[in-house]
Parts: sequence; C-alpha cells; structure tokens
Amino acid sequence: MNLPSPYLLFIGQATDPLSIKMAKSAADWSPEKCIGEFSLPGCSVTTGLPSMSIQEGAQQGAKGFVLGFANSGGVLDTSLIDSIIEALEAGMDIINGLHDKLTDIPEVAAKAAELGRQLIDIRHPTTRFKTGTGVPRSGKRLLTVGTDCSVGKMYTTLSLARALQAKGANATFRATGQSGILVAGEGVAVDCVISDFISGAVEALCPANSEDHWDLVEGQGSLFHPAFAGVSMGLLHGAQPDALVICHALNRAHMRAIPGRPLPSLEQVINMNLNAARVTNPAVKIIGVSVNTSSVSDVEALTYCKDVTERLGLPCVDPIRHGVGPLVEALG
Amino acid sequence: MNLPSPYLLFIGQATDPLSIKMAKSAADWSPEKCIGEFSLPGCSVTTGLPSMSIQEGAQQGAKGFVLGFANSGGVLDTSLIDSIIEALEAGMDIINGLHDKLTDIPEVAAKAAELGRQLIDIRHPTTRFKTGTGVPRSGKRLLTVGTDCSVGKMYTTLSLARALQAKGANATFRATGQSGILVAGEGVAVDCVISDFISGAVEALCPANSEDHWDLVEGQGSLFHPAFAGVSMGLLHGAQPDALVICHALNRAHMRAIPGRPLPSLEQVINMNLNAARVTNPAVKIIGVSVNTSSVSDVEALTYCKDVTERLGLPCVDPIRHGVGPLVEALG
Repeated sequence: MNLPSPYLLFIGQATDPLSIKMAKSAADWSPEKCIGEFSLPGCSVTTGLPSMSIQEGAQQGAKGFVLGFANSGGVLDTSLIDSIIEALEAGMDIINGLHDKLTDIPEVAAKAAELGRQLIDIRHPTTRFKTGTGVPRSGKRLLTVGTDCSVGKMYTTLSLARALQAKGANATFRATGQSGILVAGEGVAVDCVISDFISGAVEALCPANSEDHWDLVEGQGSLFHPAFAGVSMGLLHGAQPDALVICHALNRAHMRAIPGRPLPSLEQVINMNLNAARVTNPAVKIIGVSVNTSSVSDVEALTYCKDVTERLGLPCVDPIRHGVGPLVEALG
Repeated sequence: MNLPSPYLLFIGQATDPLSIKMAKSAADWSPEKCIGEFSLPGCSVTTGLPSMSIQEGAQQGAKGFVLGFANSGGVLDTSLIDSIIEALEAGMDIINGLHDKLTDIPEVAAKAAELGRQLIDIRHPTTRFKTGTGVPRSGKRLLTVGTDCSVGKMYTTLSLARALQAKGANATFRATGQSGILVAGEGVAVDCVISDFISGAVEALCPANSEDHWDLVEGQGSLFHPAFAGVSMGLLHGAQPDALVICHALNRAHMRAIPGRPLPSLEQVINMNLNAARVTNPAVKIIGVSVNTSSVSDVEALTYCKDVTERLGLPCVDPIRHGVGPLVEALG
C-alpha cells in the first residue's frame, strides 16, 4: 500500500468529534503529510488544520483526498459524492476508510476511470492471508488492549512508538485500523479480514524480526465487547505479544454503542487478556495502564492514575497529559 | 439458501478420511438426500454410499453435485474441473464448500452460464450482516465448544438436535460450517464472515425465539487454537449460549495442523469458555462433555468417560458409542 500524500482531509458535515477520528488522527500524528481540511456547511468540528476549498488544497499540492469521517448507515449522501468527484477533477486520488467501497459507487468509479485516478479503499485488504500458526517468532512485540473500543489504543501505541524511536530504539508502529494505516501509510485493517485469517494476517503484519526490535501493535476492540471480541482475540493471538498495555477511557458511561452495558474492571481485562495471550506467548506480561482522562481535571487525572498504580502495582499514565515515560521504562 | 438435492457426493482422489468430512457428514446425517458417491482413480476412502459414475448419478435423479473433499493449497487440479464440467452437462448444479469460489474458475463459470446451472459457494455468505449487540434475547441456546478443531462439535450438535426432536422438544440445529450447511440446507459459514461481523452474523443465525425453543448451535475451532480462536470467540458471544458442551478427541497428538502444540486440558477449556461466554450470558453453564473415543476400545472409552465425570462432576459420553442421553437429561 502506497498512499498518495500530502492529504486534504475531508470531514463532510460532521458534528461529532469522535466521527472524524480518522482525519484527526492524521492531523495529530502525521501533520507533515496534511495540507488542510475541507468541510461542508453544517460541519461544527475541526481537526485544527487550516480550512480550505478543494481547489485551494489542489493548488497547495494535495495528492490524496481523505474521507476522514465515519458515515453511519453505510451510504454516502449526494453532497459527499459531489465533493469526491470535484477532488478527482482537481487531480487527487481518493483515500477511503469506510466499510463501503468507492468502486461500488458507479459515478465515482466512472469518473476515476475516466481521469486515471486511484480509489484506495484502505480498509479492504488486497492480500490473501494464510491461517495463523502460533509458532514462536523472534523480535519483541507490544500490543495495546482495551476495556472498550475507542479508548485510546492507537494514540497509546503511536506515543510508545515515537518515544522508543526518540531514544534510538529499534521500533516500528504496526497499524491495524484505517486511522493507523493513514498515519503509517501501511498496515492491515483486521476488522475487514475474513475471520478464518485474523491471526494469520497479524502474523504477517508483524513477522519475525531482530531480537532487539520492538513492534508496537495497535489494538482493536475489546475481549469484553460483544460485537468485536473475535477481532480482539485473533489480533491478540496473532501478535504473540511479550508486553500488553491496558487502555481505558475514564468515566465512559457504557460499552461503545451499547447503552446499559457497563465496562469491565481493569482487573477483569487483565485476567482475560493474560489467559488468552498465553496461548501464543506464555511469557506475556502486562507492563502498564494507559488512560484517556480527558473527562476530568489535571488533579483528578493524577489521583486516578496514582490509585490504579497502588491497586495494580503497574505504571498508569494518560499519554496526552503525562507522556508514556513510565511505560517505556517498564519495557526495559 | 436453497440447496438442490438429492446430492451426488464427489470425493475426488481423497486418501485421508478427514479430508472428505463434508461428504461423510451428508452421508451420515442426510442419507435421504444422498444418491451415492463419485470418486476418481486413486481414491482410497469412502462415505459408505454406493459408488457410481456421474451419468449413473444423473439417471438416478441427482440434482446437486457436491464437492465433498478438502483441497489443500486452494487450487483445484484439472481432473477435478473435468468432473465438475461433466456434472454440469449431466444436469446438476454444483455445491462447493471450499474457500475458493467456483465462479473464479473461468471454464466452470462459462459452462454454468451456458447451461443455466447454479454454482453455489455455500461457504460464502451472501447476506450483509450487522455488528453484534449482545442484547439478551428470548429462547434457549446450546453451543458446542472444543479443545481443538475437528473434535466432533458438529456430530455432537446434530446428535443433540435429533435427540431433542425425537422426544418432541422444540429444537433447531444451526449450522455454522460448510458440512453442517450441507446437512441442514441452510446456515452461515462463520469462518468466512468479515471479522467485524462474526458475532452479529451468529445473532442473525439464531435470533430470539419462543421461550421453550432450543437452538443447537454448531461450534467452530477452539479458543485455544492460535489460528481460529477469533472465530470461536465471536461465535461464543453471538450465540449467547445458556448451555455449553465441551467436545474433545481422545489421544489427539497435537492441535490440528500444528505439530508440537499440545491440546489444552478440559479444565482450561471450561474456564476460558465460561469466562468469555459470561460477557453475553452471565447464567451460562457447562452441561457436559462429548468425546470422540474412536482411538480406543469400548472398555477404555467407558473408563475414560467415567473418569471425566468423576473429575469434573459432568456427564461425559461419546455420542457415536453411547448416545447423548445424559447430555439431553442435563438440559432438563
């Protein structure tokens, strides 16, 4: 996968900050690849990058038009399709992270063919994977696992990768979802892999490496989420992690998209993940906890992290507020 | 899915009894739908049904030509394709349970189109599923779970369904793999579902039902198999089982296709499955153990089952040798 950049980030008519996660991830983690954002009337959120028209983006050199929003219902409305056509005409390839494929929209497919532009559905693997083997492989791997979906696994993993790289360690971020792929320029969206091949796809994503090398593997879902635990399980076995970081969002009211379903405790998440991970790496360890504390004050965040450390005997940080120093130290 | 029957079971040049599992399943469980088997020179195994040519099968009324063998490597060799073409010309539709699609073989696709015959890839879901919710639903469900792949989950589930139906209970077998689908005439091959939708597909397969109804859901893989645990996990959450039966093959030397990897203990399998299943049904219970004892004598089989019962306090049977009476009783 070779994603055309720099990007113009299209955020449509979004009003929910969580719905532009993909655009925001690129703006936060690959600002050097991003020229700006393009939104439609009604949009009330921003990535923080300069707002511009498609024409302005093209004039400033944008090569990839990123569909940086989530679309509920799976159908793109007409105003969004018009913008995609305009971007194609302005010389950009389209980068799509939705389940729906752009090639399934006839007018988009026809326009791209006419102009010789690429429609890149980054969520859809083009490789045919093998089934997993669980055979031990060299190199070290860390995986982030969650109490729930969207609790900060990608941010934590990227923070760890950057911190290790900054101190000169041999470390690679491995993207497993569309936002991570956009940041890294490569990866596998494991939630789009045929289920027989989940762990095999992850074994291919982070293969044997030199003994001093760390793969920092982005987690997905949660073993406690009734929709996505299969993805989390296959990812856990395929990653064969030496180290796990537990990720959590403080004060999340319920499991994502399932009102009424409480989140599991950190202890439950630790036990279930360790038991499952030992199937492919009996030496796996939990090295710390990473919490999105954005719902509370600085003081409350520090108190919460201190309490977790006392309770579990593990370092606990908010990567945005406190950095990931204690987690990096725990890796030795 | 509406499968054309009666079937002529094509077993190719198979020499390994396990490799014709799909044909054997249909012969054992739906003999009324099977006219006979067709094999090629070199084949050394049998379903036990009469051997006949494609022409003889057609004369006796066969409507579905079932590819009843597993093909390693994913490529059908020429002699097999010739037989498929001959069956199409003899008036049959083709029923395929391999990962590879028949529509991807140009000469088969062309011949089927020319003659107006169906190419039915039963492993590939044609439905677009939703993601799972885990919301409690009415009706009762039993799921078979395994120490490994291919340990008798389908045979156990079918035995339970037939036994419940025989005593007048309101019970339905729910197929989750290609062999089960061939027997039942419908179902979802969960190992071919996009991984984001595993549990959602299973929720659709065994939806809310009347309170006295039992769905007997065929298990897949094992939470301890490093290739397939993601499938098993999504199936477990989606089935939302009230009752689990642990399935095991006595004296299996290693996890399927992974020499050197030992099977987990029954205790490990019980603990891991209960912990995971409680995410969608806190009241889940293990009701018994089902063992394929074909590797030992009658006496040794009885001794083994008695020992398991004493150790775990659960009924333990070989469904083929002993029937499933004690498991049905445990359902109340």
